[in-house]
Amino acid sequence: MTTAKRDTYTPETLLTVAVRVFNERGYDGTSMEHLSKAAGISKSSIYHHVSGKEELLRRAVSRAIDGLFAVLDEPGATRGRPIERVEYVTRRTVEVLMAELPYVTLLLRVRGNTKTERWAMERRREFDQRVSDLLKAAAADGDLRSDMDIRLATRLLFGMVNSLVEWYRPQRDGEAERAQVTEAIVHLAFDGLRTHP
Amino acid sequence: MTTAKRDTYTPETLLTVAVRVFNERGYDGTSMEHLSKAAGISKSSIYHHVSGKEELLRRAVSRAIDGLFAVLDEPGATRGRPIERVEYVTRRTVEVLMAELPYVTLLLRVRGNTKTERWAMERRREFDQRVSDLLKAAAADGDLRSDMDIRLATRLLFGMVNSLVEWYRPQRDGEAERAQVTEAIVHLAFDGLRTHP
Repeated sequence: MTTAKRDTYTPETLLTVAVRVFNERGYDGTSMEHLSKAAGISKSSIYHHVSGKEELLRRAVSRAIDGLFAVLDEPGATRGRPIERVEYVTRRTVEVLMAELPYVTLLLRVRGNTKTERWAMERRREFDQRVSDLLKAAAADGDLRSDMDIRLATRLLFGMVNSLVEWYRPQRDGEAERAQVTEAIVHLAFDGLRTHP
Repeated sequence: MTTAKRDTYTPETLLTVAVRVFNERGYDGTSMEHLSKAAGISKSSIYHHVSGKEELLRRAVSRAIDGLFAVLDEPGATRGRPIERVEYVTRRTVEVLMAELPYVTLLLRVRGNTKTERWAMERRREFDQRVSDLLKAAAADGDLRSDMDIRLATRLLFGMVNSLVEWYRPQRDGEAERAQVTEAIVHLAFDGLRTHP
């Protein structure tokens, strides 16, 4: 990552730096001083762009949230059998996680100490609920195994998908690898690891 | 949780308190002062039991690591077809996670800043590798889907299993719930969510 120059600073590059520092130090552990040092600009220059670190947090998690919710409005998520829709949403959620990795990492780590964090957690719950509703509809169709509690299935699905932020690191040959990871998650979640005779 | 009394303090109760504080504040963010306050005993009393906070960390993560490695020596993990052994290890790993929740939570969160943390991460990798080897053997038997990279499968399996520490909270009717969670994870991982005609 190159360091942005003073004279080319934009709210967008400031956001990139802020998300990196938030992920490294934790949001609570980050001061305006840390952001100023990491960005190489004065605190007053930062205040020229944003009202403070909570605004940077809001912008950053909004980017992740907007990316995730946009998936739910795509044709693949709104048309067809629920089982196909939930599989589509899973695939696209993984793609958004990988494309917006630092932003989603931050979203998954917020802890609810500020208004913005609580709002972000509420939106995450809404997203999980939408996926849970799709799973419920798939179960009602008989397309989902009937011996599994839907709330539990949702948690395990997101547990697996969200673990990406712990171990996925973009490689140079990114596209092939991203496709491999995406397919592996979808296959594991819907068909399992075992071969079926 | 009741507060242990001064006169009944043992290394075991001190460990319980330390693990709780480490999980709340992070290991880096915990001082001997924090431990002393949380335990309700003086720092010198703590030093009577242990050499310092790193020894408490070592004891705590050892408990989690020993519990996990013990699974690999159980008959279910050493006899039979590899696919059955890896399924057994998955089930027992989930049980150990739930039984030793605060200890495993701490183990999964260590970050490698101290010698003890690096040792714990190395042991975790060893455990993952042992499970990965079982998955490889199951694939060689033709019992595992052939289109999945084993390293990736191992990560996704542990991603799902380890997500427990984020959302599982023991309930009063613990045993039935624990069994339900365990079966859900094993079913999802090996057979997937979808019904197979």
